[in-house]
Amino acid sequence: MKYVDRQHLDDLALGAVFLATGGGGDPHLPRLIADQALKQYGPVELLPPENVADNLFVVPVGSVGAPTVSLELLPSVDEAANTVRAYEKFVGRKADAIASFEIGGGNSLVPLVAAAALGVPVIDGDGMGRAFPEAQMMSYAIAGIKPTPALAYDYAGNSAVFQTASTDVYEYHIRAFAAAAGGMVTTAEHAMTGLELRSAVIPNTLSFTVGLGRVLRRHRGPAPDMLAPLIDVFEPSIYGVCRHLFSGKVVDKSTRIIGGYDIGEAVLEDFDVPGRKLELNIKNEYLLARIGDRVLASVPDLIVTLDYETSAPINCERLRFGQRVAVFAVGCPSFYRTEAALRVTEPRCFGFDLDYVPLEELEA
Amino acid sequence: MKYVDRQHLDDLALGAVFLATGGGGDPHLPRLIADQALKQYGPVELLPPENVADNLFVVPVGSVGAPTVSLELLPSVDEAANTVRAYEKFVGRKADAIASFEIGGGNSLVPLVAAAALGVPVIDGDGMGRAFPEAQMMSYAIAGIKPTPALAYDYAGNSAVFQTASTDVYEYHIRAFAAAAGGMVTTAEHAMTGLELRSAVIPNTLSFTVGLGRVLRRHRGPAPDMLAPLIDVFEPSIYGVCRHLFSGKVVDKSTRIIGGYDIGEAVLEDFDVPGRKLELNIKNEYLLARIGDRVLASVPDLIVTLDYETSAPINCERLRFGQRVAVFAVGCPSFYRTEAALRVTEPRCFGFDLDYVPLEELEA
Repeated sequence: MKYVDRQHLDDLALGAVFLATGGGGDPHLPRLIADQALKQYGPVELLPPENVADNLFVVPVGSVGAPTVSLELLPSVDEAANTVRAYEKFVGRKADAIASFEIGGGNSLVPLVAAAALGVPVIDGDGMGRAFPEAQMMSYAIAGIKPTPALAYDYAGNSAVFQTASTDVYEYHIRAFAAAAGGMVTTAEHAMTGLELRSAVIPNTLSFTVGLGRVLRRHRGPAPDMLAPLIDVFEPSIYGVCRHLFSGKVVDKSTRIIGGYDIGEAVLEDFDVPGRKLELNIKNEYLLARIGDRVLASVPDLIVTLDYETSAPINCERLRFGQRVAVFAVGCPSFYRTEAALRVTEPRCFGFDLDYVPLEELEA
Repeated sequence: MKYVDRQHLDDLALGAVFLATGGGGDPHLPRLIADQALKQYGPVELLPPENVADNLFVVPVGSVGAPTVSLELLPSVDEAANTVRAYEKFVGRKADAIASFEIGGGNSLVPLVAAAALGVPVIDGDGMGRAFPEAQMMSYAIAGIKPTPALAYDYAGNSAVFQTASTDVYEYHIRAFAAAAGGMVTTAEHAMTGLELRSAVIPNTLSFTVGLGRVLRRHRGPAPDMLAPLIDVFEPSIYGVCRHLFSGKVVDKSTRIIGGYDIGEAVLEDFDVPGRKLELNIKNEYLLARIGDRVLASVPDLIVTLDYETSAPINCERLRFGQRVAVFAVGCPSFYRTEAALRVTEPRCFGFDLDYVPLEELEA
């Protein structure tokens, strides 16, 4: 796969909702905008990280905010490209390629919109291999790429340029700006050279996600029948293990926008065993799947809910009382099992007094 | 008065607490820093607005945040000058003179610190003639000066440059940044030419405040004896009427930091008439003084609490249960009685369903 074209967008969006692990922002509107951009500007060249020249200037661009807001706050076709243009003007250097913050959710598509309008390639890879709620959880930040100068642009054309010492301080500020701007902004940040990118990126996730989406589409149908095709896709990839955790009905779901994040939980009850309940903790994404005290999966591994009848992946913000769902878990890329990555993504980072145990070491 | 020197700082700080109408941030630390700056760099030239050349580039600088935070978050000697330097670098033009957001509280002193270090004059005047909680209430904004580009700098050296369409949107963003930065930041904003300044500034308030402070110091003593000297100072000035409203004991006081503002109220009970109570509403500053339904004074007129025994003006954030205080009111400058100014400063702007009635038309 050397180009991303309009025909790839449905599969990319479908695969991206799976990898978003419940968060990432709904890709519906970004998909429509990407379709418009590719129609207008033509296909976007896909650049594998291993082919990126050392001195290339790579600018990641995407949305920052509470996923709930992505259902209502309409981004414009120009917002992503305008963000990069304003960023280029501020730093005095043109972007040679655009990268993605996270392949999960709408941020799989936003970089395509910018790259198409600017006529530059997009990197086949991203900064998470999934979706995480905070900037310092990005592989770029973990690999030591500086977050700033970062430029944020809101729907009304207001902008802010940040200079901060570290990504976790930057996260505070960009989140406050997004909340004050109505809940969501587009940002350009964590810019880097091609040399830096190669050790900071989760590789080949854009083309992988198109393939994942194709499998989800082709095997559309009851969730129990989806496990085998998913294992076929994940087992040979950077993700590895894929498991079915639970099937049941949503009996409780509650999230609120707190400090610019969607925070809450969902409870599912087993179809067959009354009273057997799975609890899912949420901060934008699913963080933890538990039955009583037993952990079935936790961040940074991926927890995903699929509609039980169709296997369509469901965002947290669309999960509703009464829905029948199946819950799957997937191992995270090995980058996220390094000490540096776990220090900012393990369950304790979200307030859970639990050590991270890799999915394949947990009781199935 | 042609220069501001170390010998003026005590009176300036004292007068500034009076004009801060309960808010404005405690000037104690800014006074210490200004003293250090004037010791190091020498006196600062005071530039009367009527003498400012049309093409002079005037940069207002000051603190933004919740006054409570000013008691604890120590600003550095360099923060104000570094803010202006970073601003100059961003806009590509040197500041010819520094102006003050508000003469009330610590922001009467912050511009002196910057001007001393940068070797430029400070404007004799400010953007409020008192203290108000929000940027769009500044005379600069009311006169149509654009708020951005605005640069904010925090105690740790993190910075943000904002570009917004209007001052009320800017207020949202700068407030969010200040809250995320620990509660207070230093900003340079609403830059203007000398020509613009002349119709946007509340004139001569810096020298006036030094004089007010001198009177408060010389007549230090019981509050009832202070009324006559205060009338002598205010009557011939841009403020006009000055009244004693109430004397009594603080029987309730409660504020919380909400959205980056100190919000709450205080209740005073009359020394001589048990059960006769004055209620003061607070948003950083005193907004409204009422006995039951009867309004004694309201924004944009000034409401001030003085210690009953010494006549020392007291900030909201230092007002405590059991304190014995006298409450005074002073008319606002005529700039704030124009339709454009009242539209952003009248009681309704703070959620009170009341028309503004000028102090001198209210029953004494």
